[in-house]
Amino acid sequence: MKKYLMEGIGAFFLTLAVVMMAPGNNGGMAPLVAGAMLLAMYYAGAHISGAHYNPAVSLAVLIRGKLDRVDFTYYWAAQFAGGGLGAMMAAFLLRCTGNGEIMVRGNDLACTLIAEFLGAFALAFTVLQVEYAREHTGPGFGGVAAGFVFFAGMAIFGPISGGYLNPALALGASVAGLIAWSDFPVYLIGSLLGAAAAVSLFRVINSEPA
Amino acid sequence: MKKYLMEGIGAFFLTLAVVMMAPGNNGGMAPLVAGAMLLAMYYAGAHISGAHYNPAVSLAVLIRGKLDRVDFTYYWAAQFAGGGLGAMMAAFLLRCTGNGEIMVRGNDLACTLIAEFLGAFALAFTVLQVEYAREHTGPGFGGVAAGFVFFAGMAIFGPISGGYLNPALALGASVAGLIAWSDFPVYLIGSLLGAAAAVSLFRVINSEPA
Amino acid sequence: MKKYLMEGIGAFFLTLAVVMMAPGNNGGMAPLVAGAMLLAMYYAGAHISGAHYNPAVSLAVLIRGKLDRVDFTYYWAAQFAGGGLGAMMAAFLLRCTGNGEIMVRGNDLACTLIAEFLGAFALAFTVLQVEYAREHTGPGFGGVAAGFVFFAGMAIFGPISGGYLNPALALGASVAGLIAWSDFPVYLIGSLLGAAAAVSLFRVINSEPA
Amino acid sequence: MKKYLMEGIGAFFLTLAVVMMAPGNNGGMAPLVAGAMLLAMYYAGAHISGAHYNPAVSLAVLIRGKLDRVDFTYYWAAQFAGGGLGAMMAAFLLRCTGNGEIMVRGNDLACTLIAEFLGAFALAFTVLQVEYAREHTGPGFGGVAAGFVFFAGMAIFGPISGGYLNPALALGASVAGLIAWSDFPVYLIGSLLGAAAAVSLFRVINSEPA
Repeated sequence: MKKYLMEGIGAFFLTLAVVMMAPGNNGGMAPLVAGAMLLAMYYAGAHISGAHYNPAVSLAVLIRGKLDRVDFTYYWAAQFAGGGLGAMMAAFLLRCTGNGEIMVRGNDLACTLIAEFLGAFALAFTVLQVEYAREHTGPGFGGVAAGFVFFAGMAIFGPISGGYLNPALALGASVAGLIAWSDFPVYLIGSLLGAAAAVSLFRVINSEPA
Repeated sequence: MKKYLMEGIGAFFLTLAVVMMAPGNNGGMAPLVAGAMLLAMYYAGAHISGAHYNPAVSLAVLIRGKLDRVDFTYYWAAQFAGGGLGAMMAAFLLRCTGNGEIMVRGNDLACTLIAEFLGAFALAFTVLQVEYAREHTGPGFGGVAAGFVFFAGMAIFGPISGGYLNPALALGASVAGLIAWSDFPVYLIGSLLGAAAAVSLFRVINSEPA
Repeated sequence: MKKYLMEGIGAFFLTLAVVMMAPGNNGGMAPLVAGAMLLAMYYAGAHISGAHYNPAVSLAVLIRGKLDRVDFTYYWAAQFAGGGLGAMMAAFLLRCTGNGEIMVRGNDLACTLIAEFLGAFALAFTVLQVEYAREHTGPGFGGVAAGFVFFAGMAIFGPISGGYLNPALALGASVAGLIAWSDFPVYLIGSLLGAAAAVSLFRVINSEPA
Repeated sequence: MKKYLMEGIGAFFLTLAVVMMAPGNNGGMAPLVAGAMLLAMYYAGAHISGAHYNPAVSLAVLIRGKLDRVDFTYYWAAQFAGGGLGAMMAAFLLRCTGNGEIMVRGNDLACTLIAEFLGAFALAFTVLQVEYAREHTGPGFGGVAAGFVFFAGMAIFGPISGGYLNPALALGASVAGLIAWSDFPVYLIGSLLGAAAAVSLFRVINSEPA
């Protein structure tokens, strides 16, 4: 069950990344951002589900004989569901950006809240998963995963909210005048809720008690 | 024999990457895409052939005394054959893009099928090889290799088919309107065939029985 | 105490990176530079404080039960203080660049001194910390951390001083005519002072005697 | 003695990278290319000299007490010599490019020979060093180092010769019409000489007999 959830989450964020960065929005960066998201989600999920996030890869692992047929069916279901939901979320968020224009101030606060929540969720979930894997299997790739998921998150959510995903950074952005002080609480609440939600998922995925 | 096949595959994809991204097409990204492809193919092949993919590197290893003369001759043959075939495939695929223009819809379905097949092949083969190496030698660089081969694949095949290389992602692209629903089966078939072919190569390269 | 200092330093450089690269200055590179800085600071601080640099991540670790309440409070204080100070330093340095224009020659020497000091400090501190961690826990990510902090430092401080952060490189830039010979001593002094300050911080953070 | 040579080589290539990519030539990529070169040279030299390539870092290591005063003096001499020579070589090569324009065909063959020699030298030397370190100390970062030095080499030498650094790739570029068939022998000879020179340096640096 945990495996399928992990595959769905990975496919969701991978699709969200690709659609948000699609040609016409920020095309040139799309491959790098998508690769960075896959890199980070790989370290987040490799010890749980093998980190496929891709029905073609799951087919390859099935043929190799390292995935049984029942798991294969649920992997596909989770991956396609994650992909579809990621695309719907991206379509909603793209509407927030108008024509993909960067709005430094005066951005829609509901859009900002969702963007900061999702980005901080991906960042905190990746950090928690990588630290957990390191506790159990030795030397960690935490920096690679954290650096690249933050890169991807800032690139994806930047046109919506600035993609700060970090209250200390949002405070700095307020000090520097990049965001209005009156908007700071939205950044604070969005990213803290994202981190709290990440812990809940982390506990379910790793069967760690509260 | 397996070593020579691996060297040929690596030189094929490295050359495909460089020619597809050549000046006039997507020049600025060429070095990063080529480096990413080499990085991923290195992890895919280091435990098989040493991952040279380059006659100059094979010469250096010969002089050092870590490659015998027979292997050296076959390495050169495989590398030059891979380079020549990679260039021919790239020349064919570049014709699909017209002048390198990005065609989000209405792209040629034969071109799309080949692009998705090759990209998914490179992605699935890299993931299988890295996982295999990890099973035998410990901590893995799977995320670095997978992230960078997906980056390279999406950059190389993006102007042809979007470079989705993943049916769940192609589903998301259909939901978001980046590709037509009627084209979705081509993406599904192309990437699944690529993954299935990757397993066959994987078995030959690692002598793993079916 | 050392943990809180590390969290403050990390949040300072992360915020400095984001504000210096903000839209209107060097917008397109901001996510990559910010991710690179987080990657490098992660390896610099993971063995000291866990390398959160982010109140949302600290909240997630608190909920998970791996950070006690007193530490959590000090982490937040250090992170917000680091973020605020980083933004103030960035606002000061941005004034040095005029409108973000690159001034290869004739740049303000006080700005140059501060830029080279801060960048060399981040570079030397990261290298020292990563080497220290490697001495105690095995295989190192020194190259990833050093390469990415230098990338970030050169991108952040480039518009101010060129971002050389290295007297041998500044000598090369003088030979090639990128900076005036009469400015070379400022580069020498700035980067050497930054390295010396990095050792002081390194000793405090790791309790290593002089 | 070997340590000083390594420090000089590293400072040479780092300075070559920065000056070749200087503002007005390929400015936007300079930080990423310089960081990639440092990353690769770090893995090439960390087990020999500590991979400083930077007098400010050597000062920090001296203050920490991990470098004695005699070594420190020679490190500085080697680093400044490497930086100065790197800048002179870059100034020579920049003249080959005219105004930094990319010349796909009809490029100067002497310039091409030097560019392919230097780039293949850096690539082969990095691969040899990383493989050597892996033979002695375990899991390797070969792919990261090889991928990034190839990225850096192609970015640096691309405007001179295409930056192929690999005869199989140069064959592919000939097949695809990116370089003239009559120029192919220059690419072959340049990169093979670079690889042969890399082995000589490799043997001196690691005291490995012929």
